[in-house]
Amino acid sequence: MQFGSDNWAGASEKVMAALVAANAGDVPAYGGDAITQRLERRLADLFEREVGVLLVATGTAANSLAVTGLIPPYGAVICHRGAHLNTDECGAPEFFGSNKLIALGGARGKVTSAGLKQLLDRRPRGVHHVVPALLSLTQSTELGSVYAVDEVAELAGLAHDKGLLVHMDGARLGNALVHTGASLAEMTWQAGVDILSFGATKGGCLLAEAIVVFDLAQVERLAFLRKRSGQLVSKHRILSAQFDAWLDGGHWLELASHANAMAGRLAEGMLRSGRAQPAFQPEANEVFAFLADADAERLHAAGAQFYDWDADILEPEEQPGRGEKLYRFVTSFRTLPEDVDRFLGLLAQG
Amino acid sequence: MQFGSDNWAGASEKVMAALVAANAGDVPAYGGDAITQRLERRLADLFEREVGVLLVATGTAANSLAVTGLIPPYGAVICHRGAHLNTDECGAPEFFGSNKLIALGGARGKVTSAGLKQLLDRRPRGVHHVVPALLSLTQSTELGSVYAVDEVAELAGLAHDKGLLVHMDGARLGNALVHTGASLAEMTWQAGVDILSFGATKGGCLLAEAIVVFDLAQVERLAFLRKRSGQLVSKHRILSAQFDAWLDGGHWLELASHANAMAGRLAEGMLRSGRAQPAFQPEANEVFAFLADADAERLHAAGAQFYDWDADILEPEEQPGRGEKLYRFVTSFRTLPEDVDRFLGLLAQG
Amino acid sequence: MQFGSDNWAGASEKVMAALVAANAGDVPAYGGDAITQRLERRLADLFEREVGVLLVATGTAANSLAVTGLIPPYGAVICHRGAHLNTDECGAPEFFGSNKLIALGGARGKVTSAGLKQLLDRRPRGVHHVVPALLSLTQSTELGSVYAVDEVAELAGLAHDKGLLVHMDGARLGNALVHTGASLAEMTWQAGVDILSFGATKGGCLLAEAIVVFDLAQVERLAFLRKRSGQLVSKHRILSAQFDAWLDGGHWLELASHANAMAGRLAEGMLRSGRAQPAFQPEANEVFAFLADADAERLHAAGAQFYDWDADILEPEEQPGRGEKLYRFVTSFRTLPEDVDRFLGLLAQG
Amino acid sequence: MQFGSDNWAGASEKVMAALVAANAGDVPAYGGDAITQRLERRLADLFEREVGVLLVATGTAANSLAVTGLIPPYGAVICHRGAHLNTDECGAPEFFGSNKLIALGGARGKVTSAGLKQLLDRRPRGVHHVVPALLSLTQSTELGSVYAVDEVAELAGLAHDKGLLVHMDGARLGNALVHTGASLAEMTWQAGVDILSFGATKGGCLLAEAIVVFDLAQVERLAFLRKRSGQLVSKHRILSAQFDAWLDGGHWLELASHANAMAGRLAEGMLRSGRAQPAFQPEANEVFAFLADADAERLHAAGAQFYDWDADILEPEEQPGRGEKLYRFVTSFRTLPEDVDRFLGLLAQG
Repeated sequence: MQFGSDNWAGASEKVMAALVAANAGDVPAYGGDAITQRLERRLADLFEREVGVLLVATGTAANSLAVTGLIPPYGAVICHRGAHLNTDECGAPEFFGSNKLIALGGARGKVTSAGLKQLLDRRPRGVHHVVPALLSLTQSTELGSVYAVDEVAELAGLAHDKGLLVHMDGARLGNALVHTGASLAEMTWQAGVDILSFGATKGGCLLAEAIVVFDLAQVERLAFLRKRSGQLVSKHRILSAQFDAWLDGGHWLELASHANAMAGRLAEGMLRSGRAQPAFQPEANEVFAFLADADAERLHAAGAQFYDWDADILEPEEQPGRGEKLYRFVTSFRTLPEDVDRFLGLLAQG
Repeated sequence: MQFGSDNWAGASEKVMAALVAANAGDVPAYGGDAITQRLERRLADLFEREVGVLLVATGTAANSLAVTGLIPPYGAVICHRGAHLNTDECGAPEFFGSNKLIALGGARGKVTSAGLKQLLDRRPRGVHHVVPALLSLTQSTELGSVYAVDEVAELAGLAHDKGLLVHMDGARLGNALVHTGASLAEMTWQAGVDILSFGATKGGCLLAEAIVVFDLAQVERLAFLRKRSGQLVSKHRILSAQFDAWLDGGHWLELASHANAMAGRLAEGMLRSGRAQPAFQPEANEVFAFLADADAERLHAAGAQFYDWDADILEPEEQPGRGEKLYRFVTSFRTLPEDVDRFLGLLAQG
Repeated sequence: MQFGSDNWAGASEKVMAALVAANAGDVPAYGGDAITQRLERRLADLFEREVGVLLVATGTAANSLAVTGLIPPYGAVICHRGAHLNTDECGAPEFFGSNKLIALGGARGKVTSAGLKQLLDRRPRGVHHVVPALLSLTQSTELGSVYAVDEVAELAGLAHDKGLLVHMDGARLGNALVHTGASLAEMTWQAGVDILSFGATKGGCLLAEAIVVFDLAQVERLAFLRKRSGQLVSKHRILSAQFDAWLDGGHWLELASHANAMAGRLAEGMLRSGRAQPAFQPEANEVFAFLADADAERLHAAGAQFYDWDADILEPEEQPGRGEKLYRFVTSFRTLPEDVDRFLGLLAQG
Repeated sequence: MQFGSDNWAGASEKVMAALVAANAGDVPAYGGDAITQRLERRLADLFEREVGVLLVATGTAANSLAVTGLIPPYGAVICHRGAHLNTDECGAPEFFGSNKLIALGGARGKVTSAGLKQLLDRRPRGVHHVVPALLSLTQSTELGSVYAVDEVAELAGLAHDKGLLVHMDGARLGNALVHTGASLAEMTWQAGVDILSFGATKGGCLLAEAIVVFDLAQVERLAFLRKRSGQLVSKHRILSAQFDAWLDGGHWLELASHANAMAGRLAEGMLRSGRAQPAFQPEANEVFAFLADADAERLHAAGAQFYDWDADILEPEEQPGRGEKLYRFVTSFRTLPEDVDRFLGLLAQG
């Protein structure tokens, strides 16, 4: 009954097998190896165009480099106030580029076009103020919701009209694609995304994160910034072999599909139980639900692993009722239906 | 005949097996797992004292965090002008802390006590000047030489007398221990080292680097800086499982011993051949040698992999003769004696 | 009818005379002169204790150095969302220390103890999150309101209880002292302020800003950071001579008193006119008022200088009515009563 | 007998008078005033072309913004090892842009074309290494020598051929123009300078420094960086009024001419005395000379103000003889011939 996080899981067996195989032999370091080249070709195929690919070690680094690397230091990064970037990376974006983040509200953890428009419609105010320079959208969001392709396109359109770049934090991108049925291309560059943090770690690798940039002229700059920030992994095939196997044959989408299904099963069971109330219908692999304190304690005591969550991330109209608290449940490619059912059984016994 | 770099090799079989084993099951992320705790205990045993351990993804990050994390931004980092820190990390130390590096010369890539003393004996000159704050020594050095324990202790003593911290870049520390016969404790904190970059990647892991700090009061600060710089690997056991297996039963020293032996075999053969002149007797797993252009071309054409190297790293009295260039040959735990001998055979046929 | 800003005014005659006098003769640079020493003694007298004093060239620099200089880079700066620091310094605090700012709401531009308490009562959440490290209060605020000594003391107490430092942005501190009748000591260190940006520019100098720090052990660190950020003015007496004359004999408080009186006169006249509605009773030298567009246009056309202001700085309950906009009027030591009355006359003719 | 520094002097009477006059009236802040506009036109006239002008408060800031503002963070700044930038600004360039400085040697404090060529001819080495991005030349140099226009043009040509920008640190530019007879245009953009720190403080203002950039497309970026670094002085006319009066009617060159003449008089007298040996013939307003310890002590005791200087700044062949030390003597627009002669009289009495 582990719903603590998807990063408590390890890698899928297929990914581990690829990693073991990749270890054989001596090959050039820093990405000059055949596996890395194969991954780059595969990504070009999946994105249906040429792409720049920079593998890094962590999602924090992928996000921080991606949102700060292409804008001036006085450029501001616009994101949802609950975005990982803004709340869970210990100020890493501020470190990487000394940029200011401007946080917007919005239900279900999603930036709204009204909120973005209001911000961008402020008249330019000269050197005393940071200049909105990049919009970052998280897909799927920190609250387990998903932007539809049209929503991404609308927000990206507003951003582009004002000269901003558009970034997507795709730490759980596969979960969003499974939910929407959109292709990688449709959800990213075709919808207006300029630069993507494409995470494979949470979805079934040990560690493998990519920055994917659609303007190839920016690759060189990002490559220097990657090295300079201590993110150029020397035995590079360790990253590319995992990522490549994870993408191969739609493996990543199968893993995401399973995780999403487990979240759905959990949320449905909660609803049926009447003892836990999902804050909203999960669209990816996270369920945010309101529980009574006593139930949460009881479940924890029985060995269930899940975190209470700061309800500040919810808009006023989304807040829990009296005597309830917000809890987060994350499923992964490894979550077993039996585990979900055991949890639901315990919940029902309250 | 791969002498390009020790980071062209993968991980040892024992390390890979440990990694595969560690992948089983869901465990807490970010170092809250049992393997990481086991590694921490093992390191305390090996260092013969309590130590603070922070695993990171790359050697660049280990060095940059270690040399900048404990000093003020106006503190200067003193190192050999050929130190990786100064020449091969794309300005990463300047990025992590915006600190200035002050580079010293010295034969065989080693800081000399005379050079250090001269620098530190300058009278304090007030706010217009950066303040020497940390001495960084590379062990083994970029030129394949090794500081004796006494040399480390003397340099550290000079540094401590002036209030500087002492850092050791131990990307190839095992090779230095094998050469000197010193223990980890003797070569580090007992000789005055305050903070250590302890690298396991080059020595036989896929990726596993540790910052080891001997003042436990600094661990919290470094932990925040690690997260903030995108170096906190979520599925943390991937790092700790490798590092733990690598240390287990002296495995790492056996691997280093082999690599050193291969470098010795290579250097001896070069000397015998009369066609290649080691710049000095190798003490670790790197041979720097002078070759005639024609011989280097011939060997490259025959499939030998090694790099020509900028002779600027040598002091004036160490420079190659006319018609010769400097080349670097790196051996690893995987280097085969047969490969060395094949190379030497080709060399002799010149 | 210049109500554009108090930094449109020059220096008072007394300050200019002191500057001219100070220009005579050659004296040591960088603060080693007698005038700077005299200023330091004068400040110690006025603060009724030993203080560390660091003169800098701009208020932006004073604030940015003061809020970031004594906290770690992962420390967060807490301030009102409308604070100059947060909105008008082009991300300077993020540049100086790469720190994250956390902005709180609050009526009349003031941080509330409830809001601060809620933020600080969140349980410590480990390395994934920035750590609240410093509370910055603006006195008087960006909205022309003033914290009472008791309010400062309460907020500082909450901050200190959680280990935060307390900073006061005193760009218009004199105006607040005149309003409250408190002494410098009462309003700052006796109320819990640890470090102060003490601005003399807006109040009647050409340029003269001081960082005043009450923990003398921090002076050396700040002095290095000042130099390193290009804020150590070489012909230092230019700053100290102005500041010293401005403080001499209560000159600064007389100037502030005049400016406050002019703001009061303006606000009263507006109320009487029925054509402009102060958002609240001014407590310092700024009036924020709601005007109909047509009136504002008419006044601008008649030569009155004042800015429309983003009403976002107001809380929801403070927003202007339909057809009105928010405008800012700033008075200075140079504002003439005749000018105020002429403006009011024009207003009444609408 | 004040030869401590040219920043011990105040401002010329003409400059002070202009400052007093500029204080009258209220004018827009931040450079929106008529005096700043007049200065900009005057600079365009003097440079014989359109220029971008950004006034800042200190030379440290002018240099740091100018050398880092237009290059990527992984770009390296090349300068003489004795450059102010490298030795006297407490790491400010590293702070402003986190860029690495690469220091070259060269007699008389001047970068040599041979040294620059050797550095730039190294083959590009990929992401592991910082990329030479800007050459900074100091005019006149830290050692009181001057680059001829042809020397600047040759060095700038080498730099441009490799894609570097060229910066001139003109803290004492007037002194160099007086020595060479070159015009501002000839010495700067016509010789290949892309961006200039134009200092008026040392030459006869209280504080007034300008960044002059010849590519107007860069002005906006620099303007944001200036604000963000706390260098946008609000009552801006304080800077522009001084600078404008200083330039008016060739006043600045007269002041520089006097300072240079005083340095020449001092050096000649030293030579005649046989008791002090100028390290080389001064070309600007600084004399570096070797004195016996006893003579230096005697002169200090008699009230002469001058600093001993670290002889490390000299090349090996320029070092003082046994029993001698290096001392620096700086003259200014205020230095009196009588003071020079009094000093020389005392020297002769040894």
